[in-house]
Amino acid sequence: MCQLFRYTGPMTEEPWLSDQQLRTWRAWMALNTQLPAALHRQLQADSGLSLPDFEVLVHLTDTPEGRLRVSDLARALNWDRSRVSHHIKRMAGRGLVTREECSSDGRGAFVVLSPAGRTAIERAAPGHARKVRDVVFDHLTAEELAALEAVTAKVLARLEPDAAPSCSVVGGPATTGDDAATA
Amino acid sequence: MCQLFRYTGPMTEEPWLSDQQLRTWRAWMALNTQLPAALHRQLQADSGLSLPDFEVLVHLTDTPEGRLRVSDLARALNWDRSRVSHHIKRMAGRGLVTREECSSDGRGAFVVLSPAGRTAIERAAPGHARKVRDVVFDHLTAEELAALEAVTAKVLARLEPDAAPSCSVVGGPATTGDDAATA
Repeated sequence: MCQLFRYTGPMTEEPWLSDQQLRTWRAWMALNTQLPAALHRQLQADSGLSLPDFEVLVHLTDTPEGRLRVSDLARALNWDRSRVSHHIKRMAGRGLVTREECSSDGRGAFVVLSPAGRTAIERAAPGHARKVRDVVFDHLTAEELAALEAVTAKVLARLEPDAAPSCSVVGGPATTGDDAATA
Repeated sequence: MCQLFRYTGPMTEEPWLSDQQLRTWRAWMALNTQLPAALHRQLQADSGLSLPDFEVLVHLTDTPEGRLRVSDLARALNWDRSRVSHHIKRMAGRGLVTREECSSDGRGAFVVLSPAGRTAIERAAPGHARKVRDVVFDHLTAEELAALEAVTAKVLARLEPDAAPSCSVVGGPATTGDDAATA
């Protein structure tokens, strides 16, 4: 019984979702957990990195010096500060990053990519890209890819009306620190 | 600098993602956190429910009797058992569900929708559906919706090669219990 948005309750005048919208929405929300889980498993098996490890390393390698303020990293990842701090502590324990305190300017600590962290992402990235292509892009027509690009851009714009278009879209301007919503 | 999958590293023969694929992928992954976060905020503000609360209630109202085994609920939600148990305990404390032990058959406890839980989802669902339409579906062309339906179905099929098509796709057959990957 497909009752999401059609729970057993009183009828209202409220317009619900069409059957096609409902099917699409349920599939999308299922992917929302299953796609990261699949990428995580592949990374773990291939390289010992978790998906969150990989995301942190991607953002650090995106900078010329391989270093970011904790606050900037949090915004880029769309994580709250405490999640970033905990995660960085664990990654530092494994030698993937170091934390550099910065008492002089009061703007907080830096996270710095270590040589071992750079090696780890260089080893992990090809397999990750291959997995993304294998699961997603290798099976889409040009029209489907174009539509997916348009749809994701439209929905992002609805969620981030004030965001300047930029390539930091993986994290995007943090509109929430609420991890619970995505856990 | 858009360097995801193009981190500053040695060139390889590995085919990476095209620019269009990369843009689309980054937007999709950004939505992966931002879309649930936005839905969560709307639910909290409107009804005091969290998105995980809402998802639990949706699955319970999907059944004729408003009750599910903890194990079936975990599979439907694609959560691990311990996350379900913790979450159900908190929801029970708020009177939204009850937990019914079932010592007779050894197959584990049931989670049962309470009258207060039914009232809560009946109040929350219209605003949630409105938000989903407002953020996603009201802005798509028929072609975009059709493409999104096709893409999500294709990717799900890649991730769940053995899954029978069914409407329980929100949770889908659990292929992982690894919450860390999606947190």
